[in-house]
Amino acid sequence: MTLETLSTAKSHGGVQQVGRHASRETSTDMTFSIFLPPQAFDSDAAPLPVIWYLSGLTCTHANVTEKGEYRAACAELGLIFVAPDTSPRGSGVPDDEAYDFGQGAGFYVDATEAPYAANYRMASYIARELPELVAANFPADMKRQGIMGHSMGGHGALTLALKHPGRYRAASAFAPIVAPALVPWGEKALGRYLGPDRANWRAYDSVALIEDGARVAELLVDQGKADNFLAEQLRPELLRVACADAGIPLTLRMQPGYDHSYYFISTFMADHLRWHAERLG
Amino acid sequence: MTLETLSTAKSHGGVQQVGRHASRETSTDMTFSIFLPPQAFDSDAAPLPVIWYLSGLTCTHANVTEKGEYRAACAELGLIFVAPDTSPRGSGVPDDEAYDFGQGAGFYVDATEAPYAANYRMASYIARELPELVAANFPADMKRQGIMGHSMGGHGALTLALKHPGRYRAASAFAPIVAPALVPWGEKALGRYLGPDRANWRAYDSVALIEDGARVAELLVDQGKADNFLAEQLRPELLRVACADAGIPLTLRMQPGYDHSYYFISTFMADHLRWHAERLG
Repeated sequence: MTLETLSTAKSHGGVQQVGRHASRETSTDMTFSIFLPPQAFDSDAAPLPVIWYLSGLTCTHANVTEKGEYRAACAELGLIFVAPDTSPRGSGVPDDEAYDFGQGAGFYVDATEAPYAANYRMASYIARELPELVAANFPADMKRQGIMGHSMGGHGALTLALKHPGRYRAASAFAPIVAPALVPWGEKALGRYLGPDRANWRAYDSVALIEDGARVAELLVDQGKADNFLAEQLRPELLRVACADAGIPLTLRMQPGYDHSYYFISTFMADHLRWHAERLG
Repeated sequence: MTLETLSTAKSHGGVQQVGRHASRETSTDMTFSIFLPPQAFDSDAAPLPVIWYLSGLTCTHANVTEKGEYRAACAELGLIFVAPDTSPRGSGVPDDEAYDFGQGAGFYVDATEAPYAANYRMASYIARELPELVAANFPADMKRQGIMGHSMGGHGALTLALKHPGRYRAASAFAPIVAPALVPWGEKALGRYLGPDRANWRAYDSVALIEDGARVAELLVDQGKADNFLAEQLRPELLRVACADAGIPLTLRMQPGYDHSYYFISTFMADHLRWHAERLG
């Protein structure tokens, strides 16, 4: 696996990089950003915990890299922060004119339906291929991984954590889609990536995964109460009920006045990173 | 003076707004961003100090608003943070295809040469008109103003502070152009905005202003040592000499490894805001 470094800039005592590699899962080049905190350059230091940040609809790695305000906290806490892209991209990749399907909207699934199945393998890309690449190229302690995300990426973070509880020792989300099978964004995406049989959607739906027995140690979710997508697409109360029924400790903070934007995410980013750091040791 | 609010978003406990108004100085609409910290919404609180942040070439208000990472520190310190645009804009405003002249490159001067003199009045806009608008619309204590900026905006911040030492009680810069009359960016811009008589440039050149007797209490400057523009355009050693000769205390920090980007600015933003807050009381 060859990693090409597209850019590198010193920031907050560490280094913010953007990398690109040929992906076996998506059969495309994939771009991601990685922040290495100052501790990564201490030759005596132990490998560092890794936080995976999954972005929302329309985003690339760049949005959170520019607007997420994570570097100061990662530098303080000694966390590596990786922001993958949200889908495969390129002229050969099936796309859609809508903002909520196709390129920029991979929904962190392994698609089974034509013409998407060949490239849209974001679940395996995030959970398996990109971690291998990061482990091979950076001083990352793969025994200490946390995962977080926003909106569609919050859905990705929660579902991956529920499916791989031994791998991700901490999981949190900003304004996640918690029950895609029950909301318009998710019905559209899962229906086209996975086909009409809704039984196949349950492996990519946090609430359904919990109903079907998946467990994690605990979850942290922040949700803005002024978020335009709250009532129709996000519906955190469904996660609250599922976690209560399953006995999963959920800290769900409904934040008055906050919307769905990076102004919201950046406000609570340091909180989440601190929460992850406490759990990753 | 009518202020139109284009957007508003809660962030870090305060509110990030973007506003637009018709400017008498530039004879155009002007857009700016303003962050009101949580303290601005406390009805019992005293008016708050104001920090003016002047951006560099090609920027609008949006760049630092998205990438500057100033909100957490402003919320902690109770600072209002205003980011103006870098020039007048619009189809009726004289422009140039170059990135370093015309729209996006106002150089914080009041132009005297045709066809620029009618609109390019950024010095008066920043020092007089926008403060009047902010004072009329927000809980700002105009007795406690600080000014900072980056690159061309660092030039703007330093020159305005030197020309109005009673108004700005603190001044700092990231990678400023300190002697525009001696470097390519400045020679081009000052020559076209102010005409060929270099004597007229001295009022817009920090080093020349100090040589000619302008004084401030002290200055803080951070400069990346890996900045591609350091040797040819920025030349902080000229400011060091001028301040030493004039007895102006200058804290010039040459930061190893840092470039000219917002990854550099955001690293030292909280430091600068804390420095301003200490001086603004």
